[in-house]
Amino acid sequence: MNEIFKKSLELTAEKIEKSLEEILPSSTDGDKVLNDAMRYSALGGGKRLRPYLAIECASFFNTDSEDLIKISSAIELLHVYSLVHDDLPAIDNDDLRRGKESNHKYFDEATAILAGDGLQSLAFEVLSGSFNSIKPISQVNLINLFSSMVGWQGMVGGQAIDIRSSQGIGLSLDELLKMYKMKTANLISFSCQVGAIISNADHSKKKALKSFGDNLGMAFQITDDILDVVGDSEVIGKESGSDIKNKKITFLDHYGLKGSRLEVNKYCDYSISSLSVFDEIPSNLIDVVNFIKEREY
Amino acid sequence: MNEIFKKSLELTAEKIEKSLEEILPSSTDGDKVLNDAMRYSALGGGKRLRPYLAIECASFFNTDSEDLIKISSAIELLHVYSLVHDDLPAIDNDDLRRGKESNHKYFDEATAILAGDGLQSLAFEVLSGSFNSIKPISQVNLINLFSSMVGWQGMVGGQAIDIRSSQGIGLSLDELLKMYKMKTANLISFSCQVGAIISNADHSKKKALKSFGDNLGMAFQITDDILDVVGDSEVIGKESGSDIKNKKITFLDHYGLKGSRLEVNKYCDYSISSLSVFDEIPSNLIDVVNFIKEREY
Repeated sequence: MNEIFKKSLELTAEKIEKSLEEILPSSTDGDKVLNDAMRYSALGGGKRLRPYLAIECASFFNTDSEDLIKISSAIELLHVYSLVHDDLPAIDNDDLRRGKESNHKYFDEATAILAGDGLQSLAFEVLSGSFNSIKPISQVNLINLFSSMVGWQGMVGGQAIDIRSSQGIGLSLDELLKMYKMKTANLISFSCQVGAIISNADHSKKKALKSFGDNLGMAFQITDDILDVVGDSEVIGKESGSDIKNKKITFLDHYGLKGSRLEVNKYCDYSISSLSVFDEIPSNLIDVVNFIKEREY
Repeated sequence: MNEIFKKSLELTAEKIEKSLEEILPSSTDGDKVLNDAMRYSALGGGKRLRPYLAIECASFFNTDSEDLIKISSAIELLHVYSLVHDDLPAIDNDDLRRGKESNHKYFDEATAILAGDGLQSLAFEVLSGSFNSIKPISQVNLINLFSSMVGWQGMVGGQAIDIRSSQGIGLSLDELLKMYKMKTANLISFSCQVGAIISNADHSKKKALKSFGDNLGMAFQITDDILDVVGDSEVIGKESGSDIKNKKITFLDHYGLKGSRLEVNKYCDYSISSLSVFDEIPSNLIDVVNFIKEREY
């Protein structure tokens, strides 16, 4: 991996970690175990790729850096909730996540369900909190797009289709693509659009960043499928072979390994070319696309 | 029950049902089973008490009736999500809810987890949607209060303490009261404050309605404990004896049945006297307090 990009990704991860520590302090008036469980999954792990995308895609606009960190933290909280619930015994039944025991293994199932629930609410609490320079109307629009991207017609809906596919109901390629869009690309795409929304950018720029994110999100999910087959559990931080275990139809069933890699390249090329509306593409964005193209974790 | 009040409650329930039908239509671009599961729990049941409170407490102010129905529907969606997750095998393991099989019994556990998740997101999607006459800043404030009332330091946190209490960790009276406030009173209290928030009422009126809701919410939870002991499963629409089954410490362990009824009366009296800042108290609000005081379901 490009060393400058690696450093840049790590720097953002540090900022997000600090922000999440503030949002989720270790002392609470509520339930201590719930607090521990939310912190267990939210802190100390993950590439923080969605926050990175939100921050770098906002570099086209004049946005407040503190505001961006806050919004990015909310996106990460939402993402973490989805991981905690996906790992549950009734869903993917995964024991390992981000290099440590999954939430329900370390705590218990009831706590993991509630921790996920609390992380979702907290994402909305952060997004509806106070910001330095975001107009209330933009804030409402941001929350509305976020909620639809992660809801029953978005991420949660995609997860439901995914479950159906592991219950022996084979998905056609079209259905699979739709499921990937809902389950994975939606939240990645939302992240890429944050800067455009809060700075009320013109339609063509919003559209460009949506397309960038949609395509990058698809590439990301296909590389996830690839890593599930060829990846090393130690490196990816979760069990490889999970899709086979759960009898899931993946992109590889349709395209094979080599064909899937070619599709990843195609989606990555589309994502970059979507940005042609901008005068210049920051190197960090090109680097992040290349990272996804070649990622090993 | 007072017949005029009964009619009024039913009329609101019909309006909410219609609104929820629009929010959650039977056709979807997403997953059909998930859609069915969300509709199964959201539609066709429940007293719709929180919506009723939101609408009646807003009668002190000049608010748009369509806007109120929409917000009330979001509150109900959030409430329904909490019921679906509470009934899960890992949590209360209840098979009956609102007179029919609980969500995970009728569908399956994975679907019930995702249906709850989707209902939560949908509540936020509705609250961040378009309204006739609510200023964006009030909308942001509404979403922020809502998210904190239902989150880890609110409803979800209360539920976590509740689980702890069924794991054999006895709660002191203070802890029990705090848990009731978080788990139940918060959302009821939020409902009572909606009108004041969206019409940007002065502080004393907001405070009065918060106190009205806090006290009514406590009364509601204590009557829930009472009904779990003396109620008829057929009438209450869920299994009675659930607290004993789950070895939960309830209000009755501290106050006994008679003492608990006296406390209900006290909380109900406090709730009414909180409203002294207003010139007149609408009869519907007095009726709803009396309904909670004497409720049999």
